[in-house]
Amino acid sequence: MKRQVLASEQSEKLFEQICDYLLERIRRGEWKPHEKLPSVRALAAQFQVHRLTVFKAYQLLKQNGNVYVKDKSGYFVQPGNKWSMGADHDPIVSAYVQESHLSEIHQVQAAYQFSKALLDPNLLPNLYFSEYVKKVFDLYPKVLGTYSTTQGDEELREALCRYFTEEYRFYLSPEELLISSGSQEAIDLIARVLVKPRDAVLIERPTYSPAIDVFRREGAAIVPVEIGRDGYDLGEVERLMKTHKPRLFYLNPTFHNPTGYTVPAEQRKRLAEIAQEYQCLLIEDDPYRDIYFGEKPPLPIFSYDTSGTVIYIRSFSKYVGPGLGIATVACRPSIMKLLIRAKSLADSGTPLLNQKIFLHYFFSSRMQQHLEKLRIALSVRKEIMEEGLSDTDWQWSSPQGGFNLWVRLPESVRMDFLLAKSIEQSITFVPGSICDPQRELDSWMRVSYSFLNEQQLRDGIKRLVGVYRELPQSCDA
Amino acid sequence: MKRQVLASEQSEKLFEQICDYLLERIRRGEWKPHEKLPSVRALAAQFQVHRLTVFKAYQLLKQNGNVYVKDKSGYFVQPGNKWSMGADHDPIVSAYVQESHLSEIHQVQAAYQFSKALLDPNLLPNLYFSEYVKKVFDLYPKVLGTYSTTQGDEELREALCRYFTEEYRFYLSPEELLISSGSQEAIDLIARVLVKPRDAVLIERPTYSPAIDVFRREGAAIVPVEIGRDGYDLGEVERLMKTHKPRLFYLNPTFHNPTGYTVPAEQRKRLAEIAQEYQCLLIEDDPYRDIYFGEKPPLPIFSYDTSGTVIYIRSFSKYVGPGLGIATVACRPSIMKLLIRAKSLADSGTPLLNQKIFLHYFFSSRMQQHLEKLRIALSVRKEIMEEGLSDTDWQWSSPQGGFNLWVRLPESVRMDFLLAKSIEQSITFVPGSICDPQRELDSWMRVSYSFLNEQQLRDGIKRLVGVYRELPQSCDA
Repeated sequence: MKRQVLASEQSEKLFEQICDYLLERIRRGEWKPHEKLPSVRALAAQFQVHRLTVFKAYQLLKQNGNVYVKDKSGYFVQPGNKWSMGADHDPIVSAYVQESHLSEIHQVQAAYQFSKALLDPNLLPNLYFSEYVKKVFDLYPKVLGTYSTTQGDEELREALCRYFTEEYRFYLSPEELLISSGSQEAIDLIARVLVKPRDAVLIERPTYSPAIDVFRREGAAIVPVEIGRDGYDLGEVERLMKTHKPRLFYLNPTFHNPTGYTVPAEQRKRLAEIAQEYQCLLIEDDPYRDIYFGEKPPLPIFSYDTSGTVIYIRSFSKYVGPGLGIATVACRPSIMKLLIRAKSLADSGTPLLNQKIFLHYFFSSRMQQHLEKLRIALSVRKEIMEEGLSDTDWQWSSPQGGFNLWVRLPESVRMDFLLAKSIEQSITFVPGSICDPQRELDSWMRVSYSFLNEQQLRDGIKRLVGVYRELPQSCDA
Repeated sequence: MKRQVLASEQSEKLFEQICDYLLERIRRGEWKPHEKLPSVRALAAQFQVHRLTVFKAYQLLKQNGNVYVKDKSGYFVQPGNKWSMGADHDPIVSAYVQESHLSEIHQVQAAYQFSKALLDPNLLPNLYFSEYVKKVFDLYPKVLGTYSTTQGDEELREALCRYFTEEYRFYLSPEELLISSGSQEAIDLIARVLVKPRDAVLIERPTYSPAIDVFRREGAAIVPVEIGRDGYDLGEVERLMKTHKPRLFYLNPTFHNPTGYTVPAEQRKRLAEIAQEYQCLLIEDDPYRDIYFGEKPPLPIFSYDTSGTVIYIRSFSKYVGPGLGIATVACRPSIMKLLIRAKSLADSGTPLLNQKIFLHYFFSSRMQQHLEKLRIALSVRKEIMEEGLSDTDWQWSSPQGGFNLWVRLPESVRMDFLLAKSIEQSITFVPGSICDPQRELDSWMRVSYSFLNEQQLRDGIKRLVGVYRELPQSCDA
């Protein structure tokens, strides 16, 4: 019985796909007004579907005034642009729309951008940077004239390899590291080589929003995994792996974005085992590891992996130099080969200059001193934000690292309404629904304390709370 | 009748697709040895195909020892790894293999790399670069701490807009320019947003090889357009547009890679008109424009476009600074919106540092002086290569710009054999078939004179001709 429902759902989709196919090509002008469209028989053969499915598609198009029927000779394009999506629709441009919800909020100009989980540029040691850049030019006079290999500069991969081995007990060779132009590129490449349409993909709920967009774009069937203060319900994770046979699990177990939660060490070990058992790759995204306020976080899941089940993405951009765009991916050779191929078509290698600057800066003692200062500065900012929210009825769990506060508001609050009102007051934040693969979590918001300075934080939070208090008593009425 | 054949071909493919689907998931371990596989009825419903198609797939799998039948209860996974692709096949890794033929040749280590259409790093004004970098840090002390917008640095887009308007009479605003991390990324983004599976795409024959790989990956049906010394046969181009209704035509009309041909001005104007008529986007890739040896080349096709039909990709990396990775895409707002969205998921913006260095270096008077020297140096290298080949029976048309010689060898020569022998002698070149969407052009090769210095060129060509002369008389026997 269940199968029946599923088949009928898919038939529905198929019928819509044929509508889309026809409309798309009419829009592009492949068939001009009054031109004859392909026959039901021909389309049924082309798509390998039942003729009734095609017939259904044509009926809808006819009903909507996109096509007309002439006697028994077939379907023809209805003139008069009734098929247009709107007055400003350009007929030559109809393309795959790739969603990026977060980037839309980031485009809003605002004085108090709590939406940005980026480091305040003033917290970076900008004055020292140019010194290191000079050093790079002395050491590699031809650096701007030289392409990097697609996999990344060997000197940098060797240095990172030593670093990972010493710090996190990674068992790794430089051939198992890829340098990417930031973690976004890494997620994109991984999705492109590993995910096929209809593959199940586990994603934390909530999660880093652009990851949802990337996996959806590849046609993944997304299965959410709840993350809480104590990590995951591993029994549930195992059940999901058993039921859905997912291709991969994209996760951010350390100072998780947006919640700030950290998955405990014992769960990490067990998760690596479960993933191996069910042949589900773990994509461990780890951008906040160095930004801890108390104790160092537990070792990455990659450290517990003995079977090549974990792909580790480590971004450094967030706190070393956002303008550099450097991240690295650690994985086993069989996957590495695929990632290198994909990268050779995507950008033919991260710029060598950026890799060399990063190399000399990141591994300097100055960077390590700078990191200590950074941790203090950020924990102070976090406390300022928490203080500003302390006399509200909002709830959150104080994070021990990272850039974000994940805040729950009373259920009566309509988040979209609060965001609209906030933007009027030059404030932005990220509504919880954007971080939710199911587009729910309507009572939550992510506010980042990393981008604004202490005074701006005080003023901005005060203003945000003000907007909240002035909301009509029952705006959900 | 023709339709019948087509449908049967597609049914063939469909049946193979179902085989692949099952094998892929057995390989991944979704169904374990002796586990029951989905029923014929269920798979037929899932894929919306006739049950006979699924049955056919199972029959082949049974025949190959991948599955077995138990009474009448269905199909089961045959144990014993008979489904494995080979002893070294990693069951967890089976993914979309993305082809990149050119990058494979580039991975060959050789003393005489005629395969590389890259600039000799010694031809770049490396000493001056660090000066400009210092300037950038003085002007923008926080440049490494700042993300670029996804579309690219506004100051750079404004400068490029002025430059394009003055130099090529582009009618353009900075909102119609995107900064990408090199032309490879630009082609990749364009393919991803504009090409859907089964879309026809016109591509020159021969062409820039990675472009073939990118469009194929998106599932395009590639239709070759012959390019010759005098450009295209426009009547044929029109016929192809009429017949195939292509989504786009990827072309490189100025010092074309690999042939060096330049499409004349009158054809450019007419091509823009035809493309508009048939709603076929022209993707004009223009990386060699500044590298002319005689007269300046004709204006870009984009200059003749009045309808938003042309997308212009201009790479600067090749001669300004390969290590910078900077290119720009000019197109109308409707397409720009899509490209920005795609880029926000692909790498969230080209590094600001690289954009600022490029801005200050490219628009300096020093760069313009450098370009003049560069043109002379490259034309000298071209002549050295041509001299080295002058007493062979090879044929080529002397290019008036660019980095490459496109050479025809006698038909008796087996190019793969010559390449193998050349690699033994530490020489690489690009066999013509790699540049051909149809994988023919077996008598041609691309040899680049841009990467090696004058002495290396002399020695390398001598050595290559030597390898050729020592080939067995009839290696095609």
